[in-house]
Amino acid sequence: MQADGEFDLIARYFKRPSPGRMLGVGDDCALMPLSAGCELAVSTDMLVEGRHFLTDADPESLGHKALAVNLSDLAAMGARPLACTLALSLPVVNHAWLEAFSAGFHALARESQCPLVGGDTTRSESGVVLSITVLGEVRRTHALRRDAARVGDDVWVSGTLGAADLALRLVLGRLPPDPERLRATRPALDRPTPRLKLGRYLAGVAHAAIDVSDGLLQDFGHILKASHCGADLWLDALPAHPALADLDESLRREILLAGGDAYELCFTARPLWREQIEVLGRQLGVPVARVGTLVRGQDLRVLDGAGQVVPVAYRGFDHFSEPCGDIA
Amino acid sequence: MQADGEFDLIARYFKRPSPGRMLGVGDDCALMPLSAGCELAVSTDMLVEGRHFLTDADPESLGHKALAVNLSDLAAMGARPLACTLALSLPVVNHAWLEAFSAGFHALARESQCPLVGGDTTRSESGVVLSITVLGEVRRTHALRRDAARVGDDVWVSGTLGAADLALRLVLGRLPPDPERLRATRPALDRPTPRLKLGRYLAGVAHAAIDVSDGLLQDFGHILKASHCGADLWLDALPAHPALADLDESLRREILLAGGDAYELCFTARPLWREQIEVLGRQLGVPVARVGTLVRGQDLRVLDGAGQVVPVAYRGFDHFSEPCGDIA
Repeated sequence: MQADGEFDLIARYFKRPSPGRMLGVGDDCALMPLSAGCELAVSTDMLVEGRHFLTDADPESLGHKALAVNLSDLAAMGARPLACTLALSLPVVNHAWLEAFSAGFHALARESQCPLVGGDTTRSESGVVLSITVLGEVRRTHALRRDAARVGDDVWVSGTLGAADLALRLVLGRLPPDPERLRATRPALDRPTPRLKLGRYLAGVAHAAIDVSDGLLQDFGHILKASHCGADLWLDALPAHPALADLDESLRREILLAGGDAYELCFTARPLWREQIEVLGRQLGVPVARVGTLVRGQDLRVLDGAGQVVPVAYRGFDHFSEPCGDIA
Repeated sequence: MQADGEFDLIARYFKRPSPGRMLGVGDDCALMPLSAGCELAVSTDMLVEGRHFLTDADPESLGHKALAVNLSDLAAMGARPLACTLALSLPVVNHAWLEAFSAGFHALARESQCPLVGGDTTRSESGVVLSITVLGEVRRTHALRRDAARVGDDVWVSGTLGAADLALRLVLGRLPPDPERLRATRPALDRPTPRLKLGRYLAGVAHAAIDVSDGLLQDFGHILKASHCGADLWLDALPAHPALADLDESLRREILLAGGDAYELCFTARPLWREQIEVLGRQLGVPVARVGTLVRGQDLRVLDGAGQVVPVAYRGFDHFSEPCGDIA
């Protein structure tokens, strides 16, 4: 592998011209200014082959998704992307794979104005491991923190829930083959859309937000725990993806309430803002559904159409509790 | 592994109280302000078991080193540490290992005022993979960029060179056993000291800097390439670690010029600053050696005591060019 030096790989696949005020790939550190009145928002996620993506995953989609799931954390904080770094560990240098991966990555980086400014490539003995750190900025006091929800807030969810989880079950053969349903849901699994604009416009308006990556109940539960609130969620108000329509009811509920990989925002806001949030959703072309209310206490109740409590025993995905080798 | 949830691992080993103005582990993003007049400096490095550290590496030293090599990038930029994130992929949950690793990590984080503010834990099928991102701040226009060296600058190296590389050769059995030499050099390999204070005081004084991680010639070569300069380096002026004293001369040269893992700063500055830099080194207790001068052209020449050119054919370490399974 004579010519495939670490530095050549970075230059070839990852170095891009940096925006004006920024020093990007090729120094000890990347440098960038922050806007006046803003603070820095930072998030890191790691994706492991065979665990977060399949070995035969389409590399272009993987490049998109690896960045998208990180950008989703900025969205959930109400932050505007500034830049990202990528650490990439590869068992072999496969140029076709790198070409497609970097194309998917850079396309979303461009679209999100989140240029790659640094990183590391190294060789691993086993599968591909990706670690991405995203940097953003958010106006001081406007960040959508998990501990900022208040009793009386409305609970909202963007987009629809369940498509990615359903697609994953079909891909893994955990449901009987269903090409039509797979076609309708696979894009949600492979190329999730981080809700960056929605998050930015909600900053300063909403109280708390989180992105739904491990399942609605688990992720929303983090807000409740951090904010010392309880909540009632209305099952029938949850924005189910159309492909869930005629599933077995208990499976449908499980996917809605505990399905991972949705990358939609779950946020809370004063009822005062109800109409403005609906208008905002229409302006951005992002559906927003009001799905519950925050109450005193610490219980998270799911209510059916008749106001009856639906027993839920679902937990989201937790990498160290699940059986080895699972994909999340 | 009932209770070893991902969230429990983060809470138990990695969550620490965050400094006053900062939001740390436990939200979608960490938040932090930047000082007025500063820009953000960011760097990411990945460490792979069996490649960057041995499987039986002492976990406390590993925790120290993983952060140290990243802080060294901030030092080489002249930046003050703000915070760091850690992504950690583990084949099994070994509490003794995590305890020791996080102790080594946090001890250096505290000492360097670089708190861990975010990250990710996941399970890998194979070895441990670590990815760390460090964030720092540096006064605008003061950063020690690689492309800022000028013809006529002095070339300087901090500390001593060669100890870590010599220790690694002894550990790997590439040199005959020599317990005394190993005792003298092993700390340099296991617990390198990032030159943060030196870097910060050089910001605004020196022109360009880089940290010596892949070998002096290779790393210094990046400055020359980015700054469009050549250089003469004086072999006899290079600050060799005492343990190199009575080595075979060609091995000694190879270790001095191409030995990795030194994490000393190589920097360039106007001759005007010569005396101040020497005083600074004494004040900080960090030896600084003047080892060469920048010249027109693009050649990097190494000269012996008689002013004769020493033929060098060394290359530093490049993860994708070296034989598989090597440790760097």
